[in-house]
Parts: sequence; C-alpha cells; structure tokens
Amino acid sequence: MINLQWLPVVAAAIGLIVAFILGSWISKSSEGTDRMKELSGFIREGAMAFLKREYRTMVIVVAALFLLIGFGLHNWITAILYLLGALLSVLAGFFGMNVATKGNVRTAWAAKESGMAKALQIAFRSGAVMGLCVSGLGLIGLGIVFCVLDLATVTECVTGFGLGASSMALFGRVGGGIYTKAADVGADLVGKVEAGIPEDDPRNPAVIADNVGDNVGDVAGMGSDLFESYVGSIISAITLGAVAVTNAPSDASFTTLDAGAFPLLLSGLGIIASIIGILFVRGGEGKNPASALNMGTYISGIIVIIGSVLLSKYMLGSLNYAYAIIAGLIVGIAIGKVTEIYTSGDYKFVKKIADQSQTGSATTIISGLGVGMLSTLWPILFIVVGIIASYYFAGLYGIALSAVGMLSTTGMTVAVDAYGPVSDNAGGIAEMAELPHEVREITDKLDSVGNTTAAIGKGFAIGSAALTALALFASYATVAKLDIVSLLDPIVIVGLFIGAMLPFLFSALTMNSVGKAANQMIEEVRRQFRENKGIMEGTTKPDYARCVEISTGAALKEMVIPGLMAIIAPIAVGFILGAAALAGLLGGALSSGVLLAIMMANAGGAWDNAKKYIEEGHFGGKGSDSHKAAVVGDTVGDPFKDTSGPSINILIKLMTIVSLVFAPLFGAGLF
Amino acid sequence: MINLQWLPVVAAAIGLIVAFILGSWISKSSEGTDRMKELSGFIREGAMAFLKREYRTMVIVVAALFLLIGFGLHNWITAILYLLGALLSVLAGFFGMNVATKGNVRTAWAAKESGMAKALQIAFRSGAVMGLCVSGLGLIGLGIVFCVLDLATVTECVTGFGLGASSMALFGRVGGGIYTKAADVGADLVGKVEAGIPEDDPRNPAVIADNVGDNVGDVAGMGSDLFESYVGSIISAITLGAVAVTNAPSDASFTTLDAGAFPLLLSGLGIIASIIGILFVRGGEGKNPASALNMGTYISGIIVIIGSVLLSKYMLGSLNYAYAIIAGLIVGIAIGKVTEIYTSGDYKFVKKIADQSQTGSATTIISGLGVGMLSTLWPILFIVVGIIASYYFAGLYGIALSAVGMLSTTGMTVAVDAYGPVSDNAGGIAEMAELPHEVREITDKLDSVGNTTAAIGKGFAIGSAALTALALFASYATVAKLDIVSLLDPIVIVGLFIGAMLPFLFSALTMNSVGKAANQMIEEVRRQFRENKGIMEGTTKPDYARCVEISTGAALKEMVIPGLMAIIAPIAVGFILGAAALAGLLGGALSSGVLLAIMMANAGGAWDNAKKYIEEGHFGGKGSDSHKAAVVGDTVGDPFKDTSGPSINILIKLMTIVSLVFAPLFGAGLF
Repeated sequence: MINLQWLPVVAAAIGLIVAFILGSWISKSSEGTDRMKELSGFIREGAMAFLKREYRTMVIVVAALFLLIGFGLHNWITAILYLLGALLSVLAGFFGMNVATKGNVRTAWAAKESGMAKALQIAFRSGAVMGLCVSGLGLIGLGIVFCVLDLATVTECVTGFGLGASSMALFGRVGGGIYTKAADVGADLVGKVEAGIPEDDPRNPAVIADNVGDNVGDVAGMGSDLFESYVGSIISAITLGAVAVTNAPSDASFTTLDAGAFPLLLSGLGIIASIIGILFVRGGEGKNPASALNMGTYISGIIVIIGSVLLSKYMLGSLNYAYAIIAGLIVGIAIGKVTEIYTSGDYKFVKKIADQSQTGSATTIISGLGVGMLSTLWPILFIVVGIIASYYFAGLYGIALSAVGMLSTTGMTVAVDAYGPVSDNAGGIAEMAELPHEVREITDKLDSVGNTTAAIGKGFAIGSAALTALALFASYATVAKLDIVSLLDPIVIVGLFIGAMLPFLFSALTMNSVGKAANQMIEEVRRQFRENKGIMEGTTKPDYARCVEISTGAALKEMVIPGLMAIIAPIAVGFILGAAALAGLLGGALSSGVLLAIMMANAGGAWDNAKKYIEEGHFGGKGSDSHKAAVVGDTVGDPFKDTSGPSINILIKLMTIVSLVFAPLFGAGLF
Repeated sequence: MINLQWLPVVAAAIGLIVAFILGSWISKSSEGTDRMKELSGFIREGAMAFLKREYRTMVIVVAALFLLIGFGLHNWITAILYLLGALLSVLAGFFGMNVATKGNVRTAWAAKESGMAKALQIAFRSGAVMGLCVSGLGLIGLGIVFCVLDLATVTECVTGFGLGASSMALFGRVGGGIYTKAADVGADLVGKVEAGIPEDDPRNPAVIADNVGDNVGDVAGMGSDLFESYVGSIISAITLGAVAVTNAPSDASFTTLDAGAFPLLLSGLGIIASIIGILFVRGGEGKNPASALNMGTYISGIIVIIGSVLLSKYMLGSLNYAYAIIAGLIVGIAIGKVTEIYTSGDYKFVKKIADQSQTGSATTIISGLGVGMLSTLWPILFIVVGIIASYYFAGLYGIALSAVGMLSTTGMTVAVDAYGPVSDNAGGIAEMAELPHEVREITDKLDSVGNTTAAIGKGFAIGSAALTALALFASYATVAKLDIVSLLDPIVIVGLFIGAMLPFLFSALTMNSVGKAANQMIEEVRRQFRENKGIMEGTTKPDYARCVEISTGAALKEMVIPGLMAIIAPIAVGFILGAAALAGLLGGALSSGVLLAIMMANAGGAWDNAKKYIEEGHFGGKGSDSHKAAVVGDTVGDPFKDTSGPSINILIKLMTIVSLVFAPLFGAGLF
C-alpha cells in the first residue's frame, strides 16, 4: 500500500493548482469604475492590514508555545510541526481573503454588465479558491508529514500540526468575529438608526470597516476555522490508527500504516470530488442559483461515497469503514436540515419569533432564546446516532472517520459558505459606488441563496466538531495513559464542572469584547458626524481609516484573553488537578460547549431571519414596531452567531488538542 | 447509639409545634379594614384553589408512579414511602402558603398601625412557619421511617421518599413559576404599560392573579423546592452510609447505623438552631431589619457548627466529618456572596448593565447575558473546592454531609427567603386597599432587605443542589452495580450529550410555557378593558376571578410536559441505552444544568436590579429610554430567575433520583 502514500499530496497539489487557475480567472475580469476600484482598494487594504497585524500579534503566542513544546516536552519535531500547522493556517486565510477581496468588486461589476449568471460564477469561484486553499494546504501539509516521517513519529508528533491550526483558528475566529461585529453595530446603530442613512451609504464613516469586517470575520475567520476542523479530523483518525488495527472487524485486514494513510486518501479523494463539484456549478439566466449550488454539493458528496466504499473494501478489507463514513454524512445532512427548519423564515419557529415581535423586544428575545434552546434536541440526537452507528461499525476509529468523511468535501462546502460574504461585499460596493439598483438586487439574491445552501456545510461543521473532539479526547486518554476516566471519581467530576463552565466563561468574555469594541466604534462614528458636518451633506469624506483602525485595534486587544484562556486552562488543570481531572474537563467542555454553540448559532440565525421575514412585509413590515423589536433580536443574535457561537467549537477542540500535546507532562496532580 | 434515633423526630416535632405557635400568634393580629379582608380573601381563595387543583392534577402522576414502583419494581415499601414523601411535600407547601396568605394582610395592617418593627415580625414569622414546616415535616417523615424500618430496608427504599418530594417539587416549581410569571407579565404589560395605571392598581383585572402568583410561585413553589433539597440531601447521606463505614478515616469508629443516623441528628440539631435563630430576629424602630435577619442566620449557623463538631467527634469518633460540614457551609456562604456581587445594584456588574441600557435594549440583553455567563466562574470554582475538601475529609459521605450541613438550617433560611414575598404581597394589599403611602414604603423596604439577606440561602441552595446530586449520582452507580462509568466508553458519552441537552430542552419548554400563558393573560386583560369601559373609570369592578382562572388553567396545562420529560427521559435512556448511558446522562445533566441554572438565575437577578438601579434615578431614571430598555431586560429575566432557572436544580436531582429508584430495572440496554 506504501506507494499510495503520495497520492493525497498529489490530490492536494491539484487542488491548489485549480485554486490558482480560478484565482487568475477571477483577476482577469473587470473591476469596474474608478470609484469601485478605489472603494475595493480601501476594503482590501483594511482587510490585509488587519490580517498582518493579527498575525504579528500571534507571533508571540506561537513563539511561546513553540518554545514550551520544544523545551518543556523536549520534542522539537512536534514543535516544528506546530509551526507548520500555524503557518499553513495563516496562508489559507491569507490566500482565501486575498481572492475574496478581489472577487467582491468583480462580482458587483459582473452583476451590472452581465447579470446574475456571471456574478454567481465570480462570487462562487472566489469562495472555491478559499475552499481549495483550505483543504489543499491542509492535506499537502499532513500528506508530506506522513510521507517524510516514520509512522511512530507521525502518530506522536502530528498533534503539533493540529495545535498550530487550532490556536490560529481560535484567535482568527475571535479576532475576526469581534472586528466584524464592532464595525457592524457601529455602522448600523449610529448610521442607520441615529443618522437615518441607508445601509452601506458612503457617508457612514464605519462603512468601510463594516465591509472589511465581512472579509476578516466571515471569510478569513471562517477559513481558519475550517482549516482547523479539516486537519483536526484527519489527525484524530491518524492517531487512532493503532486502536483501529486492534479493534478491526473480522473481515478487515490492514496495518497501522494503512489505517493512518486511509483518512489522507479519503481526503485526497474529497479534494478531487470538490473540484468536480465546483466545475458543475454554473449559473444561467432564469436558472435558480440554489439548484446550481446544490448540484455541486450533491455531486461531490456522491463521489466521496462511491470512493469511500471502494477504498474501504479494497484498502482496509471491510465495508464497515464506508458505513461509518456514510453514517457521518447522513448525520451531517440531517443536522443541516433541522438547523434550517429552526432558522429559516419558511418554517414555524422563525415565524413565531416574528409573531412575538408584535408584543415587543422582550418577547422577541424570550422566544428566540427558547427556539435556540429547543433547537439543540435534534442535532444532539443525530450526533448521538452518529456516534453509536460509526462506533458500532468501526469503533473509535470509525467515529474519527465519520468526521473526516463529512469534511472531505470542505473544498466544496467552503465555496458555498464563502460565496455569501463575497456577494454581500459586492452589494456593499455597488451601494457605495452608486451602481443601479438592480445590481444590489442581484447580489442580495445571491447572498440570500447562499444562506440557505450553506445549511449542509453548517451541519457538517457542527457534527464533525463533536465527533472530532470525541476522537481527540480518546487519543488524549491513550497518550495520558488513562485506561478509564470514571465519572464516579470526584476529581473527574471536578474537572467536568470546570470544563462545563469554560464555554460559558468564554462566551461571556467574547460577548463582552464585542460590546466594548462596538462602543468605541459608536463613539467614533458619533464624533465624526458631530465634528464634521460636511459628511452628512456629502461635501467632505468621512475618515474611514480611523474606523478601520479602531476595529483593528479593539479586535486585536480583545481577542487575547479569551484566546489565552483556552490554552492556559487545560494546562493549569492538568498540572494542578492531574490528567484524570483534565479528562473530566474535556468531557464537560465537550458536552456544555456543543450545546451552547448550537443554541447560540441557531438563536442568532432565527432572530436574523425573523427580522428579514418582517422586512418582507409581515406583521407590519419595515419600520413598524414589530420590526424595531426584531432588530433588537437580530442585534443580540449577532455576537451569538458570528463571534461566540462559532468560536466555541474551536475552543472545545483546541483545549482537547492542547491536552493531547502536553499530556506527557501531566501526572496525578498536586493533591 | 440506638437510643439517639428518636431525637431527630423529637426535634422535628418541636419545630412543628413552634410553627403552630407562631401561626396562631400571626392569626391573632388584626386583618385591618373590611376592604383589606376582602382583598386578602380573594388572594387566599385564588391561591388555595390553585394548590388544590395542582395537587389534583398531580394525583394521576403520583398514582402512576406508585403503581410503576409497586408492580414494576415489586417494591411496595418504596412505593408507600413515595406516597409519604409526596404527601409531606404537599402539606409543607399547603401549611406554608396558608400562613403566608394570612401574614400578608396582617403585615400591611401592622405597618400602618405599629410601624416597621411589628411588620417585620409578622412577615418574618410567616416565613418562619413555612421554614419550620418544610424542615419539620421532612425530618419527622424521614426520622420515623428510619426508626420503624430496619436499616437495610431504609437504605433500599428511602429513595422512594425522595422521589415523592422531588416529583412534587418539580411540578410545584414549574406550575407555580408559570402561574406567577403569566400573571405578572399580563398585569404589567397591559395594566402598567398599555393602560398606564400603577402597579397593584385595583382597576387592573390581573392584579389579584398577580398577588396570588407571588404566593403559589414564590412561597408554595419555593417551599416544595426546599423540601426536596432538604430531604434529598439527608437521603443521599443515608444511602451512602455503607460506603462511609468502608472508607472511614483511621480515627473514626462507627457502624452503618450510626452513619445513617448522623445526618438525621445533624438536621434535628439544625431545627433547634433555626428556632433559636428565628426567636432572635426582632425588629426595632430605627434598627436595620437586615442586621436583625443576619443575626438570626449567623446564630443558627454557629450553633450548627458547634453541634457538628461535637456530633462528629463523639458519635463518629473523628473530627473529619465536621470539617466536611464546615467546608460545605463556607462554600455556601461564598457562593451566596459572589451571587450578591453579580446581582446587586451596589456592585459594578449591575451598574454596567444599567449603563448599557442607555444604548438600548439590545445592549442591555447582551450585557445581562454576559454577566450571567461570567457569574458561573466563581460558584463553580467554589463548588469544586467544596467537592475536593469534603471528599478529602470524609469521602463521598463527606460530600453528602456538606450538603446536609448547608440545608440543616433550612428553617431559618426559608424564613428569610419567604418573608420577601409576604412583604411584597402586603405592599400589594396596601396599594389596592388604598392605605397611606407610608405603608407601601415600609413593605418595600422590607422586601428589598429580604432580597439581599436571601443571598446566603441562595448560595446554600445552589451549592447543596450540586453536592446532593453528586452524592445521589454515586448512590445510583452503586445500586446499578456500575463499578466504573468511563468517559472513554462511547455509550457514556452518548448519555453525556443527551444529559447535557435536557436542561436546555427543559428551559425552552418552560420559557415557552410562560410565554403562552402570558399571552392568554394579556388577551384577557385587554378584553376586559375593551368590553367594560367602567373598569378604568373605577365605576365597575374588573373580573378578577377570570384572570385567576386563566393563570391557573394555563399553569396546570403547561407544567405537564416539562414535568413528565424529567421522569420519562431517564427511564427511557436507562431501558434503551442501558445503565452506563444513564450514568452519562446524569453527569451531563449535572454539569450543563448547574451552569445553566446559575447563569439564568444571576442574569435574571442582575437585570431586575439594573432596572431598580435606574429607577433610583441613575441614567435618566424612571420613564427614560434607559429605563424602558432595562424593563425589557427585567421581562426577559423574569422566566429566567423565577421559572426555568430554579426548576433546573430540581430537574437534575429528580432525574438522578428517578434513576436511583428504577436502577434495578436497567441492564445493558437494547444495543
């Protein structure tokens, strides 16, 4: 089987080459008017400046962890793989955002010159570049590591790579999330509500920062998030390779090396499947963009299923592994579908929130929180079914594989996910550059379609996070030499309580950070309107750069404490209370974190769409009292769904992988 | 030691006699004017009618569980003890509320005729009757069971008693919580906001229902809640008696019988300590009521500490048990204190929420949720310290004892807790009967002092709930013959996920129920105002009875599903997924439930006091935009702190005790 080892690297390289070709294709289309070039230049500069400063801030954290791993664990290979993981995560975010900030203005111009089909293609391909960079860079890194190092070293040290990806992802998500929400709230609250100017009006000083935020939060932040999920799932499967061989079904026949290579090959297959899916997405006038996007998703999914059956049968000798993967895919799709039911305006839950908006913002909030909490039932039951099924077919290794399966088509799902913010940005540029109204209509349509089609990707993200964390948790127990982690041991319960608390604390810190950063932005926008009367009259330009600067500074400052908490808490508990308590902590964080993340994401999504549902003319429509109440819900939901909620999934995995890397240091604790 | 066995029964009987004497003393004081008699008659009738119908509804549940235990487990002793526990819970709620509905009107009249000192005494003694009924009935029941049955039977069957108490408590808390919030929201939203009439105005059709709600929710509901906590902690210690002997410290020397009798004796001592504390609470003109209340709490606490040292040393032969108890008391007080810091207007967190109210209701909600989440940190760390310390001193038995210690002075802490709603009700009657303004000032002062002094009781409630649930969980594992419950077993993780989800689902259901019931009330109050114009002119009386009827009907209907969920979920998981998955479920529910309960209670408390802080004249004061935003926060917080939050603590324990009772039925599950 050893000759297959280089195949994932080849597949990853093909993915990167396709990404490069698509990127060049996008660059070739026109940027439109001078005004558009200028505006997109502002956005681009702001976004790149933020990323650079963000990465510069993180150099300190990265260096500290590098030295800690090297000197503390005496394991320089892990330390170097840590650097590699962090670096590739940075590159994925950087390339993806680079293309997104080129794609936005070109999408806007294509919508004006050629209409929906061309605009869809540019926006979608911008997302596809991101998707292929995320999966290509992740797989090329892991694939090379797997080929160059011997198996024992890979199993021991590859967690360093995951730590690099996870730590960058957490800072990226939190920093990006704070940035985008601070700018958004500042632009909305002062610009739209107080000054009464429309969304994306160029007179709004925070308008550029708002558009930069879409890129650094929804594109770069999401990219590093999915890079982390992608490599995390593969790493969890690789580290469980030895377990896989021990507990293999009777018809299976393979070595530990095969067990390690399998998730890489599956992911390589997923990249090829994604490329095929991406090429199938073609808009046409009068054609529904949603069906084009869904077509691509289904095609790549079917290819992965067929490939996993063949790989499972001929490489590992048993179909059970394919069953585990298929179970994961079904669970991911099911979670995506119920998520849609709870958060889309087409179903009763969002309508109920909109209905409750008629009795004011308090009932809007209560019903939204209720929907968020209620929406945890089915995803948890699906995750449970996924765990039982994949474990039944292929043990712990099966649980890891089912997550790898869900994420193998990351190239495609990220493309669908990232094309939304690109369209959104295109709309912003169209508005600011005063393009005809129809342009905005096209980009709005593209954006709203993107929100629905992203459901499957969201289901995969939630489902795979839970399963990956669980698989990594099992790896941690192996490395920490814990044969059992008994809930009857009070120190485990102590860990469980602390772990369950951490996602709450983390959410409080991140929501608080958004609040602080937004307040600074509000004050700055108010100041500009107050001190420079020419802005509202349209005679002088507002100081966009100052708002960009404020969002950047606040986000960088505010991301530090929650980020460090995620790294320091497990290490501290491991040292002070011991390895068993730390296992309890990971279990507690996993259980309460997954719940809180689903609750926050769905409550936020439901509020957002309840507001949109009212804006479509229900319950009094735009400007009515119901609408005002719904706007309150949406504002509360913003940090829920774009900052705290998505960060929690990373938090859980980061804490698990920190524990896994530093496990050799923890003993029985100080007591 | 056997001759000491009857002492707890004697102490409990003394407590009940003192309760009777205090009750008669209250009855003897004057009810005031005919109008006051009439109004208090309405409240009393409404409250009693609700309790009766509530108990009638629950007869079906009780009968079903009785038969299930009897025929299903072939254990009629457990079944009969179940009935006894349920019956005593009903009696505690009934007696307590009976006196509270007598005390309210007499407190109002005493405030008018004699001033603060007399009013304090009547209100406080009304609470004291409740407190002594709760602890007296709980201990007399358990004490007699312990004397009459042999030890093996007690250990096996006493959980039935706990199940009776817990199931009644859950329905009582949920039903009472829905009632009070529906009436409150209906009265406030239509009466105060829409019609613009003051709080407790007799023209408001929902005003009687609102005052009834204070009694059925804050008095009867809280009473059954604390009855459950009280007997639950004692039962957990009794069932761990055998474990206590096996793991006793080297200097200890006692039998399993002693280990079972010890928590009963400690509780008997607590009743005597409470009586002494209660008698020390005496108001005086110009004297701060808070110091009188605190004096009583401290005195009873000190007596318990001294008594536990003596009991521990001379009955069990080791001081370690006293250390465990003292650790519990310190933890309870610490939790109470930090709870106060997060929820009182004197500290920065509430001030920050009030500050954020200036930028609207969205920022009020975000900062309140943030404070709620942040406020979980210290209570969890204190609980963790409590677990470690009490386990270190005396093993699992020590954990149970530390909860018993916290709750031993329930007579005193309930008195402090229940006197708030009595004063609140007195204020309502004063308003409706148009007594002079000074009367309302006195009752408001008493009410607000009650809120602060209740902090220690709240700390004890939270801390003891976590510790009791943990101890019961350990007992469950013993009965289910689970030597280990390993987090590395996927079926345990499956249970953990389901368990972590249940408090979220339960909160969604209860919040939803409050919303539905409140909507019915809002429509009814609007209808009365619309169809009967004489109400607002003061020429015709509103139909109070119809509003009482609506709250009653809605509460009884809405409490069923969440209540049944708590009973059915663990039984279903135990049957389908087996005993180990059920253990995981209990661990998951414990960890996420304690967090959610603390978060909801503290967010609700903080919003409430942020509103009051603004009403004191800060940030624009009453009627300002900040105030309106703060009212939204308070309305969201109402079901948090008075319905969902407090019910979760009962939910956790009820699910654990259901598992404990039905453990003999569960095997390895269907898979």
